[in-house]
Amino acid sequence: MNPDANAVSDETRIARATLLRISEAATPLVHHVREHGVEQTLADVRAGASIPGVDVSALRGRLAEADGERDLTVAASVGARLVCPGDDEWPVLLEDLVRIDADCFGVWVRGAQRLDEVCARAVAIVGTRTPTAYGEHVAGELAAGLVERYWTVVSGLAYGIDAAAHRAALAGGGPTVGVLACGVDVVYPHGHRNLVARLVDEGLVVSEHPPGAAPQRHRFLVRNRIIAALSLGTVMVEAARRSGARSTLNHARDLLRHTMVVPGPVTSAMSDGCHVALREVIGSVLVTRTEEVIEQCGHLGELADPLAAPTRPRDRLGPLVRRVFDAVPVMRPAPVERIALTACVRADVVEPSLAALRALGLVERSDEGWRMSRSGRDERHAQARPDGVLPLEWL
Amino acid sequence: MNPDANAVSDETRIARATLLRISEAATPLVHHVREHGVEQTLADVRAGASIPGVDVSALRGRLAEADGERDLTVAASVGARLVCPGDDEWPVLLEDLVRIDADCFGVWVRGAQRLDEVCARAVAIVGTRTPTAYGEHVAGELAAGLVERYWTVVSGLAYGIDAAAHRAALAGGGPTVGVLACGVDVVYPHGHRNLVARLVDEGLVVSEHPPGAAPQRHRFLVRNRIIAALSLGTVMVEAARRSGARSTLNHARDLLRHTMVVPGPVTSAMSDGCHVALREVIGSVLVTRTEEVIEQCGHLGELADPLAAPTRPRDRLGPLVRRVFDAVPVMRPAPVERIALTACVRADVVEPSLAALRALGLVERSDEGWRMSRSGRDERHAQARPDGVLPLEWL
Repeated sequence: MNPDANAVSDETRIARATLLRISEAATPLVHHVREHGVEQTLADVRAGASIPGVDVSALRGRLAEADGERDLTVAASVGARLVCPGDDEWPVLLEDLVRIDADCFGVWVRGAQRLDEVCARAVAIVGTRTPTAYGEHVAGELAAGLVERYWTVVSGLAYGIDAAAHRAALAGGGPTVGVLACGVDVVYPHGHRNLVARLVDEGLVVSEHPPGAAPQRHRFLVRNRIIAALSLGTVMVEAARRSGARSTLNHARDLLRHTMVVPGPVTSAMSDGCHVALREVIGSVLVTRTEEVIEQCGHLGELADPLAAPTRPRDRLGPLVRRVFDAVPVMRPAPVERIALTACVRADVVEPSLAALRALGLVERSDEGWRMSRSGRDERHAQARPDGVLPLEWL
Repeated sequence: MNPDANAVSDETRIARATLLRISEAATPLVHHVREHGVEQTLADVRAGASIPGVDVSALRGRLAEADGERDLTVAASVGARLVCPGDDEWPVLLEDLVRIDADCFGVWVRGAQRLDEVCARAVAIVGTRTPTAYGEHVAGELAAGLVERYWTVVSGLAYGIDAAAHRAALAGGGPTVGVLACGVDVVYPHGHRNLVARLVDEGLVVSEHPPGAAPQRHRFLVRNRIIAALSLGTVMVEAARRSGARSTLNHARDLLRHTMVVPGPVTSAMSDGCHVALREVIGSVLVTRTEEVIEQCGHLGELADPLAAPTRPRDRLGPLVRRVFDAVPVMRPAPVERIALTACVRADVVEPSLAALRALGLVERSDEGWRMSRSGRDERHAQARPDGVLPLEWL
């Protein structure tokens, strides 16, 4: 994190922490906040003003008990931070939640990496808590394949499919994000305390719920929409006919993300929900392997190839990102503006490209600006692939 | 069969038998035949006239050896007949083959039932010759469910999925049609001699290939298009990535039939072809049970209902067919014209409705005309279902 670029004042951050605690991310405050700002919204709640569609008196009762500053202190004590709109680290993907009239005033994050960078190329893998061996196997294969291809795996840290996906991502050395239905300082389910610890060390643990929040039922649905929003697409692997995974898939659809489903035997109750989703969720795509997931989420050109897969990160860059990559200095760092000039691309387009190149490990950032990483230098001089793989146009 | 209504002369039938033998249903003679008729086409071939897109000299060589009359005699000796355009029994469904520029000058048929009636409500079930236990189970369940709901099961009499479908249909006491890639007097594969015999007794065996024709490789593709054409939809149950079943599914798509695919474990090579088809064949629908197959093929209103399925044949009639049914006399048979008058429906609409009602076992035909069958009388007086099931609008 670059604290210099941080545009969120302490007051605003405290206000957002307070808002997260009183709103429980489940009240339709979003429009009022967008119009009047966080501080004014809190003042309106405190004054008992009328806000359309919102039970202000209930919020007001909770506001009397809420203390955003204390929540920030408690979070800091376990190494967690509140990431808000305005922070460098805030993923623009979360802005899409407004599409589904959802509040997202910030997310509590534990872990050393930057949330926006980790989620620049992320796929969610979700499913039942009681999978068959088949479902666990497929979830693991997909997660392993994704991290191998520099994609991040997002899931819900639940038993079953979620755990299989997180574990395979960790085993593959790739980033993985666990989104909780409780506070980031609460371990749930308790059997996952080691898994949560590993995600904090090697990935990220995220929650909209304030420190200390217990995993109440309604919080799982809120959690699911964050999973869907942080990813470019959601893959459902095994789900019974009634399954929370379906809500994640529905959120993904509403957020205009890719919705993907793994089929299974029609005789397996644990695949029923998947088959229903394939029949009912408009736009849902049947996927059987990682390449097909990336074909969906990786945009134009990243087609699943049964014969050969791209072998070098550079092959997977789109024309725009490749142009930015080619403009990054090898040794002496340059600021974004300089790189934009060299690449003949607008600076606000260069920044996400650099973030993505950094997620791929091709460039690195210092106080003076950006330059090639070691593997970036290797890539720069590597031969272009001779077999005419289409470039990835993902920005 | 009603020989009085038979409009095909012996000469034409012999000419069609000859044409089937020389064309092997694989030369694009269809347009010439549509324009000039069968006899003229044979005369043109004999004279060595030029026919666009056709290797007339090759046909001419085969014509010297061909003898349609002999083929009809050989067929008759095993109880088979040639069903041609113009015959009452000719299924209009086969006319659709012209959509895919295919010749179909007639089909050889063995078995007592009428081909048009048996195929009035038919679904094809196709798949690999080397299924897993899962695929055999699902094929059997679908076939049993279809015949239980008065649908005919069409398949290719091959080992594996085909055999599982035919056997389950026979076990359910329902009609089933086997389409061969050899002559109807040839048993192939030999291990299916008992199955072929049962289809001849209780269903129908059909082939475009002349008596004595061996099951050559190209004949399987010709066979597949007849399977697709005789059915309102084709269900693919287990198929490897390269599978003949895919050609049947493609023909079904080209013939504007319903294309349905049963998923399976993504780890099973025998479901690979199914998953590829679900991803690639435009309009292909994932199905997991009989009700979903009927929801596709049964047209408007016959929606898959997870809670209750229609229990009486009458419930499944559309408004038009029900009106015809209500106009059929209980005891004294009436001719079609009389029934049309009573029902206030055109006679050419009444006829297919009666054929369908007969296939459902609700009416019977005698020399004097049509009347209720015993089960039709029961149905007539049965209470309408109270639960508001939508009617089947399938005519």
